[in-house]
Amino acid sequence: MAIAILTSGGDCAGMNPAIKQFVDYCFSKNIQPYLIYDGLEGLIDGDIKKASYEDVAGMMHQGGTMIRSSRSKRFFEYEYRKIAYENLQKHGIDKLIILGGDGSFRALDQFYKDFGVNFVGIPSTIDNDIFGTEYCLGVDTALNIIREATDAVRDTSASFKRACVIETMGRDCGYLALVSAITCGAEVCIIPELEYDLDKIGKRLKEELKNGRKYIVCIVAEGCNSQVCTNTNGLVKWLEEDVGIETRATILGHVQRGGNPTVYDRLMASEFATYAIDKILDDEKCNHVIVYNKSEFQFVSIDYVNSQKYEIKKELLDLARRLIN
Amino acid sequence: MAIAILTSGGDCAGMNPAIKQFVDYCFSKNIQPYLIYDGLEGLIDGDIKKASYEDVAGMMHQGGTMIRSSRSKRFFEYEYRKIAYENLQKHGIDKLIILGGDGSFRALDQFYKDFGVNFVGIPSTIDNDIFGTEYCLGVDTALNIIREATDAVRDTSASFKRACVIETMGRDCGYLALVSAITCGAEVCIIPELEYDLDKIGKRLKEELKNGRKYIVCIVAEGCNSQVCTNTNGLVKWLEEDVGIETRATILGHVQRGGNPTVYDRLMASEFATYAIDKILDDEKCNHVIVYNKSEFQFVSIDYVNSQKYEIKKELLDLARRLIN
Amino acid sequence: MAIAILTSGGDCAGMNPAIKQFVDYCFSKNIQPYLIYDGLEGLIDGDIKKASYEDVAGMMHQGGTMIRSSRSKRFFEYEYRKIAYENLQKHGIDKLIILGGDGSFRALDQFYKDFGVNFVGIPSTIDNDIFGTEYCLGVDTALNIIREATDAVRDTSASFKRACVIETMGRDCGYLALVSAITCGAEVCIIPELEYDLDKIGKRLKEELKNGRKYIVCIVAEGCNSQVCTNTNGLVKWLEEDVGIETRATILGHVQRGGNPTVYDRLMASEFATYAIDKILDDEKCNHVIVYNKSEFQFVSIDYVNSQKYEIKKELLDLARRLIN
Amino acid sequence: MAIAILTSGGDCAGMNPAIKQFVDYCFSKNIQPYLIYDGLEGLIDGDIKKASYEDVAGMMHQGGTMIRSSRSKRFFEYEYRKIAYENLQKHGIDKLIILGGDGSFRALDQFYKDFGVNFVGIPSTIDNDIFGTEYCLGVDTALNIIREATDAVRDTSASFKRACVIETMGRDCGYLALVSAITCGAEVCIIPELEYDLDKIGKRLKEELKNGRKYIVCIVAEGCNSQVCTNTNGLVKWLEEDVGIETRATILGHVQRGGNPTVYDRLMASEFATYAIDKILDDEKCNHVIVYNKSEFQFVSIDYVNSQKYEIKKELLDLARRLIN
Repeated sequence: MAIAILTSGGDCAGMNPAIKQFVDYCFSKNIQPYLIYDGLEGLIDGDIKKASYEDVAGMMHQGGTMIRSSRSKRFFEYEYRKIAYENLQKHGIDKLIILGGDGSFRALDQFYKDFGVNFVGIPSTIDNDIFGTEYCLGVDTALNIIREATDAVRDTSASFKRACVIETMGRDCGYLALVSAITCGAEVCIIPELEYDLDKIGKRLKEELKNGRKYIVCIVAEGCNSQVCTNTNGLVKWLEEDVGIETRATILGHVQRGGNPTVYDRLMASEFATYAIDKILDDEKCNHVIVYNKSEFQFVSIDYVNSQKYEIKKELLDLARRLIN
Repeated sequence: MAIAILTSGGDCAGMNPAIKQFVDYCFSKNIQPYLIYDGLEGLIDGDIKKASYEDVAGMMHQGGTMIRSSRSKRFFEYEYRKIAYENLQKHGIDKLIILGGDGSFRALDQFYKDFGVNFVGIPSTIDNDIFGTEYCLGVDTALNIIREATDAVRDTSASFKRACVIETMGRDCGYLALVSAITCGAEVCIIPELEYDLDKIGKRLKEELKNGRKYIVCIVAEGCNSQVCTNTNGLVKWLEEDVGIETRATILGHVQRGGNPTVYDRLMASEFATYAIDKILDDEKCNHVIVYNKSEFQFVSIDYVNSQKYEIKKELLDLARRLIN
Repeated sequence: MAIAILTSGGDCAGMNPAIKQFVDYCFSKNIQPYLIYDGLEGLIDGDIKKASYEDVAGMMHQGGTMIRSSRSKRFFEYEYRKIAYENLQKHGIDKLIILGGDGSFRALDQFYKDFGVNFVGIPSTIDNDIFGTEYCLGVDTALNIIREATDAVRDTSASFKRACVIETMGRDCGYLALVSAITCGAEVCIIPELEYDLDKIGKRLKEELKNGRKYIVCIVAEGCNSQVCTNTNGLVKWLEEDVGIETRATILGHVQRGGNPTVYDRLMASEFATYAIDKILDDEKCNHVIVYNKSEFQFVSIDYVNSQKYEIKKELLDLARRLIN
Repeated sequence: MAIAILTSGGDCAGMNPAIKQFVDYCFSKNIQPYLIYDGLEGLIDGDIKKASYEDVAGMMHQGGTMIRSSRSKRFFEYEYRKIAYENLQKHGIDKLIILGGDGSFRALDQFYKDFGVNFVGIPSTIDNDIFGTEYCLGVDTALNIIREATDAVRDTSASFKRACVIETMGRDCGYLALVSAITCGAEVCIIPELEYDLDKIGKRLKEELKNGRKYIVCIVAEGCNSQVCTNTNGLVKWLEEDVGIETRATILGHVQRGGNPTVYDRLMASEFATYAIDKILDDEKCNHVIVYNKSEFQFVSIDYVNSQKYEIKKELLDLARRLIN
């Protein structure tokens, strides 16, 4: 009996601590852990290796994933999944832990249906947009990176009557932008989940500027780029032309995915990995996702995770309501 | 009707964002917020001031508390509490929000019994040792400061066969040391909550050193200083003489109380303050503490908070069990 | 006799420590220091205030400038300069210390010629592009902010075969991008000062990718945005289409101007301010700029500073030569 | 012809970037670089390895030294040095670059005299106490780590009338403590280089406290621990008993040696390594130390480095003079 771990799709901080705990905890249970490199691509290509203590030493504080990740088109085809299955058999691996998003979980669910390979998925994405779990690995680190950038921008904006638009990640989900706006004291927050009226916001800002406001910090989710008037460039233009203030954009991009994992992400990584291993060792059949809600870890089916779109909780949206008026 | 905020006892990161949200939220409700400086001492001395937007602008990213804190012996005496009450009356303040620990809450409870001044306590201490709440404001920031120090120490310890003992805060509670040990990959963790056998630990370390281990990171809670053999100096001596490795101590001290508040502490601060104000405005009588459990905010009585000693949850202790063997 | 300080043009980290040292050092010399808010605009508007210890307490670790800055068109006109002069006379101020760039120095030089107001300019710009000085205040902090972002990006780029283009500030000068590329181990560095051959670079990158390279970090100076093929968007397109690797941009923008000043910037700020005050107190006539070369502070004329365009020293360009081949 | 690098004595940030540049630059010159692990101990034990690109990839941002360091008593004996020499001969290595302090340089100088092995020493110690060079690798990173700790301590000290004593490294040299005190706005600085009068300082502090001062930050060099009255514990006692203010100590210890190297240390590392290699390749006989003065790199003899004790420059001591009165 052997168990392997892989990381799939977009990487995030927290993956390395989870891999380390996976290896340490397997050893403490006298089970041989394996590492699959380059995600599902490496599974197909047989890039699989017995893990040792040395492989994971001093890895806790590295961002990203040291076993690398990928997006795999080949894995959609049965013939490649069959090759992947044969690769696992060569090493006697019959259980998988996967760190990734819902797309990766669905891929492994098909694999489970094809060949009966048990797995547990650990939700890992800085977008925090997986239905059924309050928390996805990597979110806390991403938020703190955005915070540091926003704090720096505010220093300088306050020095020089000026606005700044900060674009965070989040294609379909404004979670990162929303929490950043609340916690960094932004004046404007534009996310797909909230309707807004630029005229109303503009009127508020102009009045505040007249009353002595020295700067404006505006946080916008990347996902808003599809909307002409409220993507980053559109907002810069609007602030300069309509509101009438010198404005500059900051696009954080992949900076948000890296960075030394925070304590919260390290602790969640340890707990996610420990519970996932306990579950997969206990159950005869396992194609589940571990989720975290109300301070507790639970296991749900892939179907449940896919059944709905993630929605930001109302209380959080309420905290930002004044930023869109 | 007016409402005031004060900070009392040991300060922590997160107090400033809570004060800022207190002021902003009061204004959005058209209530006049007041700031009491220097904690209960300032309440006695009448150091009370109407808050304005300017008072709290750009305060989100400051560590500590900008309205300062104190420990007050005078407040134990009725005559000083009476003066304090008269100070509040002068400003028409009949409601208080207090950020502090259980001692501060008890003091205000007496004040409530004496004069009927409503209050809500927000648990704020990096020790995370208040019964009835999973989280106290400031803990996440303190943990991340310890993490950065520990990551730096591990770099250098790994460069030079050497041990390091890091002493964290925590007089009666090993929470900070425990979580730090788990999340920073320490080899040894000494906290009051765990029994340990130094001989056993020493045997493990010596074997690991023989097998190629290059360094040892040992995290110890300040509270263990009362025990001769396992305080910081005792551990340094033991590592050098018994385990046989050059060792150096790091005592973080008050560094842990300061620092730019993390996103988690800022968000908790916003939510604690918002719920506390809503509660105190709704209730006719209010001498409660707001607590956070299973992702929800609730209100409990002072008596409940004082009824038991805080205990670290078992699952967390289990994650560290291998560090004391 | 009184002396005032102002900050002008683009702000940078290091200005606050300089202002603090200005105030502290004046007091130690029994001279009354004044603060002029909002740069030359505030000089015209009479926004001038006696400085006290309290004004500058705890200001050392703030980014930007707490007395704010501006760009002033009005100061080009004699009539406004005359108003500014009269404002200074009201307070008995006959000496100015100005933190800014060469444009600001020229403005004060005209003021000196008009009314004989002595001044010393302290070169302050993260672009490090002032002729005659090896160092301008703010550069070290900006470089370390870029470093942290680049380190984070590399973590994630290494996790997922991917390229990242990081755009740094620097309109006419590639100093920030150059030093960042050298010190962060970038694979490509595009700055105005270096000629490059994209075909050659592309060939190198493709070969390295074939040989196992997992990621590409490319640093580009904002100033290159004027050139179609090598601005940030052009590079992203080229990496994706020609080199054939998924690519994402990071535009740091004003994040680089803010942030807690580094030790180097704080120390330079202290020394710049101290020497500038000593000079202006000693000389009867003073319209100079303080410069730092070969570890020594000197004073040069405005004309000298304006006589040539700043050029990055050859040894530094040589260190990056392999990044453009 | 082959060339090897080793790190010796106390490690510091900046060693890894120097090792990386050593390897990259050797390859660009078509010379085979070698890595010697564990310092002089590894040289005796034959722990020598051909370097590859992979060995140094992604190493720029690691603190400490990835080839590890040691202090070697055996190397004082001719017979062990002979073994070391034979180890080098096996690999055809006739040139060494050593990162360390003056003790390590003397050891290699004896080796040079015994067997004619050329070497260049690169001054590397956070104490910055090597005669003949203004800068030693690692100092800037150590200073910025102390700065972050001190900034955090000041936040909390300002929240709660309290003093804090921060002990920095520096056995015989107060450089770290001095620069930290100047740049972090400390109220007291105790270093071996400055004479002080505790009574006088105490009088000043008491007066300032009476006038409203809310906190005291005191920075002390570790080297002062030999003096009973002014070591860390002595100062805590004095502040509490004589000055009359609650006080807490922070002992940073080895935290100062680790941490992600700053841009300045990375750039100095690149330049030190490049110049050192150029020198050793050019000269037939080379037993020199590379030093950095007035923005230029030069080569001096071991004898010169050993001829005097390093002294902090007067201008720097002057900046702190008011902290000891």
